[in-house]
Amino acid sequence: MSEAELEREIVALNYRYARCLDENRLDEWPEFFIEEGRYLIQPRDNLDQGLEGYWLYFENKRMLRDRVVSLKDVNIYKIHYERRLVTNVEVTGRDGDGWLARANYLVMHTDNEGRSTLFSVGEYRDRIVRSAGALRFSERRVIVDTFVVPSHLSMPI
Amino acid sequence: MSEAELEREIVALNYRYARCLDENRLDEWPEFFIEEGRYLIQPRDNLDQGLEGYWLYFENKRMLRDRVVSLKDVNIYKIHYERRLVTNVEVTGRDGDGWLARANYLVMHTDNEGRSTLFSVGEYRDRIVRSAGALRFSERRVIVDTFVVPSHLSMPI
Amino acid sequence: MSEAELEREIVALNYRYARCLDENRLDEWPEFFIEEGRYLIQPRDNLDQGLEGYWLYFENKRMLRDRVVSLKDVNIYKIHYERRLVTNVEVTGRDGDGWLARANYLVMHTDNEGRSTLFSVGEYRDRIVRSAGALRFSERRVIVDTFVVPSHLSMPI
Repeated sequence: MSEAELEREIVALNYRYARCLDENRLDEWPEFFIEEGRYLIQPRDNLDQGLEGYWLYFENKRMLRDRVVSLKDVNIYKIHYERRLVTNVEVTGRDGDGWLARANYLVMHTDNEGRSTLFSVGEYRDRIVRSAGALRFSERRVIVDTFVVPSHLSMPI
Repeated sequence: MSEAELEREIVALNYRYARCLDENRLDEWPEFFIEEGRYLIQPRDNLDQGLEGYWLYFENKRMLRDRVVSLKDVNIYKIHYERRLVTNVEVTGRDGDGWLARANYLVMHTDNEGRSTLFSVGEYRDRIVRSAGALRFSERRVIVDTFVVPSHLSMPI
Repeated sequence: MSEAELEREIVALNYRYARCLDENRLDEWPEFFIEEGRYLIQPRDNLDQGLEGYWLYFENKRMLRDRVVSLKDVNIYKIHYERRLVTNVEVTGRDGDGWLARANYLVMHTDNEGRSTLFSVGEYRDRIVRSAGALRFSERRVIVDTFVVPSHLSMPI
């Protein structure tokens, strides 16, 4: 497969992931990861200072599935609509049997009155492998610039 | 034509469309549609509830041209500048002689004092055909998340 | 090289440029330009009215390097974090030994309290050449929609 083709596939993976969350299809979200896949949310501040502080640190798919269950319980509090703009997708290198990639994101929220506001801006840093016939994340690390948002009840980013 | 090539063409169509409106070249806007092309704006709320409520429902190119005329009449009220960020372009399938595609958008407005604010965030759901030597919309359905904006005088999205 | 391949390279150039500034690697910024490369920031208002007013008008790489030095001096005033979303990249034509291209951008700022706000939205209008083994700007003209921001101390866009 050519570099161009791989890049196209990784861009498509990013878009499918965004659409899955935008449409609140939470049950499908863990399927973007391999069984031992990690999903981390880390404030950019901590990353820059070499600190280990994470908002979320999920080490495998089971933890992602548990998250989905608990999110469904608190669903009543959630924002009306989400919309992700994913841009600047870059494949930055190989890492063993996987590829390293990055992207920028903007998550917009729209409340029940139809007002849209910025929820979070930041970056994805991914390690992606081919597994069970599709590209999946062996790690998706979300670096959030915006850190005034309450994280404990939030949807995945 | 390869899938990659088609996708590239559809991305380019989206960008040309955005630039046409950003630059206020309203007369060219209907040319992005075929003669019997439809242009709809529908709040996401209505879509989700299976309601038929539309902000705009234009069933053919003549209606689009009429819109252009009326917009030029009210031009004095219009916002100073617009800028569209179109992302997450996905070709999602074939439909007869056409292709189905989606994209996310963010429309920014800048007023006379140079202040930029979000106008609308949402999604395009398109049916695209090749007609008269170019890709054109047989349907462009705009799903708007943001529904606090006055629609009656607005530019197309 | 095919059109698709060139386009892909120009998209990648845009993303590398964005990431360089987002990560505050100012020393590397002039390397995106050729020696006689120009970097201009012009309010969209002036462009539209055919006025020559620029916020910045750098005529060569030496001026860019001087800018980097002065920006490092005022670094204490600068915003905590920047994040660029670059979209709508279009290769619009050839110009001698170079290519003309455009893109839209959104620059988000995040302050020390973690609040993210829009800093600037606008457009890049570029002339790009191949030089010393890479694509570089012989001209990057930034057309800013947003003109309420103080320009004198700002980072490049």
